[in-house]
This record gives sequence, structure tokens and C-alpha cells, in this order.
Amino acid sequence: MFMKVHVFRVEPGQELLSEVTRYCSEHNITSGVVIGIIGSVERAKLNFLMELPGKYESVEFPGPLEIVCAQGSVALKDDSPIIHIHIQISSRDVCRGGHLAEATVFSTAEVVIGELDQQLRRRADSYTGLNELIN
Amino acid sequence: MFMKVHVFRVEPGQELLSEVTRYCSEHNITSGVVIGIIGSVERAKLNFLMELPGKYESVEFPGPLEIVCAQGSVALKDDSPIIHIHIQISSRDVCRGGHLAEATVFSTAEVVIGELDQQLRRRADSYTGLNELIN
Amino acid sequence: MFMKVHVFRVEPGQELLSEVTRYCSEHNITSGVVIGIIGSVERAKLNFLMELPGKYESVEFPGPLEIVCAQGSVALKDDSPIIHIHIQISSRDVCRGGHLAEATVFSTAEVVIGELDQQLRRRADSYTGLNELIN
Repeated sequence: MFMKVHVFRVEPGQELLSEVTRYCSEHNITSGVVIGIIGSVERAKLNFLMELPGKYESVEFPGPLEIVCAQGSVALKDDSPIIHIHIQISSRDVCRGGHLAEATVFSTAEVVIGELDQQLRRRADSYTGLNELIN
Repeated sequence: MFMKVHVFRVEPGQELLSEVTRYCSEHNITSGVVIGIIGSVERAKLNFLMELPGKYESVEFPGPLEIVCAQGSVALKDDSPIIHIHIQISSRDVCRGGHLAEATVFSTAEVVIGELDQQLRRRADSYTGLNELIN
Repeated sequence: MFMKVHVFRVEPGQELLSEVTRYCSEHNITSGVVIGIIGSVERAKLNFLMELPGKYESVEFPGPLEIVCAQGSVALKDDSPIIHIHIQISSRDVCRGGHLAEATVFSTAEVVIGELDQQLRRRADSYTGLNELIN
């Protein structure tokens, strides 16, 4: 169940992923679902998985770009929270989505996180080379 | 917490944003999260933020187009509800996402709204020129 | 209300839609919301609605591709569960979204399903030629 649904705004010029991380830390959220993010960004860096194990390519997208949507989770690996977010960005001419590496907010980012009553956990996976959810 | 999760269908030929607005009004939803919308549209008009404060460009997309996903919120500005939705649309050839200005449903739109137990509020923001969520 | 939020991983090489179906069957989920899916796929087949009633085109997308997001529902038609998912996929070069017909997981797929306390139902609709949600 979502014990609590957190809705908050990230402000212009702030870095989106670090602000979500800070919010979770300040509110002691160690297990949750990123239900959504909408808004706009000045720029974004997305990662695209190319090969296993764990070979990413990072691509920088210049803005302004709409944040169309985002999904993900907050989970613990050992005692450290990992926030994993995929995000969709679009202008009138270009549209891409991938793993959120970093993004600078343009007008706003409206973030919705559902805090869970069960603990999500990750561990290193040698096949994928990534920290995967434990079922 | 989501006190109630509303799931409803918008029918062919109906305008999506006004039907979501009407549903919220009829069910007295003044604070909530648009968890998702999927379906298809005959056409859609999306807004893209170009400059601050508040300069948008509107682009019309002819369909049929899939509604891939949507996210957003229902919040009060003073006593008036504001429904803010970003939506992703795609055909086999074109894919874009942005601020939902209006869209005409093709086959269906399946809308999910989570009604909140806390009141979301917006106020005019002079820097962005938009009605922003109050933290 | 979401009585329970299910979060689970689908593993490399598995077919996404059939694994979600299997999970729902094993956990007796007959009514729910697909809140999100992120991860990556080796390949995906998406359907795009072209004409009514019910004429789809299927398009195969070679990967690797990020699963940017997904939304949908679990509902009953008579006594059979129907899982309806729209999904957004993207590489650094190509980005599309549509009705999930099938997809093979590359590194992972992290699925979030909110189980509902009310029963969603579908029935055949002669105008659209599809199984539509009953309001």
C-alpha cells in the first residue's frame, strides 16, 4: 500500500535527480514508487543501455524540453537508497526517453512518490552488471 | 494516501481534457494525481514551453495516435480546480509528448486518478508566469 | 484504493506481457492498475490502431531499447482477466509508444501494479471492435 503520497515541486535551475534524492533523504523515504514527474527541463542527460553487462551510452539533450512523464522506484542496496528513474522528454521536434542521469529544471518539475509499506531492495547482478530489484 | 482510485473511460469523439475536468467536478475531486491515461486520439493539441515567463507554442497533431501515457494532478488555485496533464502520443511514424491542451478521443481513453487525502494547491508564479504547485 | 502495491522484476530473456499475466494469475489479481514499468528490452512488438472497428497494425522494433514507462490495467471480461498495457520505448535514435503486443526483456523490467478494491470490467464494444472498460 502507499502509506503516504508525496507531491512536491522542484524549482527552476535545480538538478532534478539530486533534489528527488534530497527530498527522500529528508523525509526518510527508503522504499517507494516514483508515480510520476511532469514539468520542463533546460537540459537533460539520459543513459541508454547498449550491451550487457552494464554498458551505457550517455546522451545530452539541449532544451527547453517538456518532461512528459517519469517512473521508477526508491529501494535499498544494503543500507544505501538507490533512486532509479526513467524519464520521457520532448520538444515539438525531438522526443526521447531513457535512464535519468541528470537534468536541470526549466519552469518546474512536479514529482509524485508513493511511499511503500514493504521494503524494496536491490543487489548487484553479475549478468546485467547493474543493481537489480530482488523479487 | 490515495483515499480512492477512480478509473473511468472517455468515449469516442469526446474531448479528453474537458471530460476529465467534468468527471472531477461531478465527483468533487479537488486534489489528486493523474496516475495514467491510455487509449487513442483522432487528434491532439499539445503545448511546448519555449521561454519564461510562460511563452508556449501550440502544435496540432493529426491522428490516429495512441495515447501511450499521461501524468499530472488536480489542485486548487484559490477555489478553482486546475487539472494539469502531460501526455505522450505516438503513431508508428511520429512520437511526441507535451502539455495537454486538447484531444479528441478515437477509440477510448482509460483514465486513472488517485484522490488524495491532502489538499494540493497552486498559485501564480511571476518567474515562470505559470500557476505552480505550492510546496 | 490500492489494497496492495505489487513490485516485481521480470528477468532477461522473458516475455514481458506473459510474465505480467502469469504474476497476476499467481497472485489472484483480477482488478488493478499498471502504475509503471521501466527497464529495457531486446525487442518489442507494438500495435497501432489505424481504423475503427479494431484494425491494428503491428510493428516490430529491434533493440536494445529502454522501457521508458508503461501504463494500463487488469480487468475482467466475463471471468477472464484482460491485461491492457501501453508502453513507451526509446533508444538514443528512435522513440515510439503503443499497445504492448509482446517484448523480450533485455536487462530487467521493474513492474508496479496497484491492486484495486473495486472490480474493473470490460465488454466487447461493437463501435470500436475492442473490449472496452465499463464505466
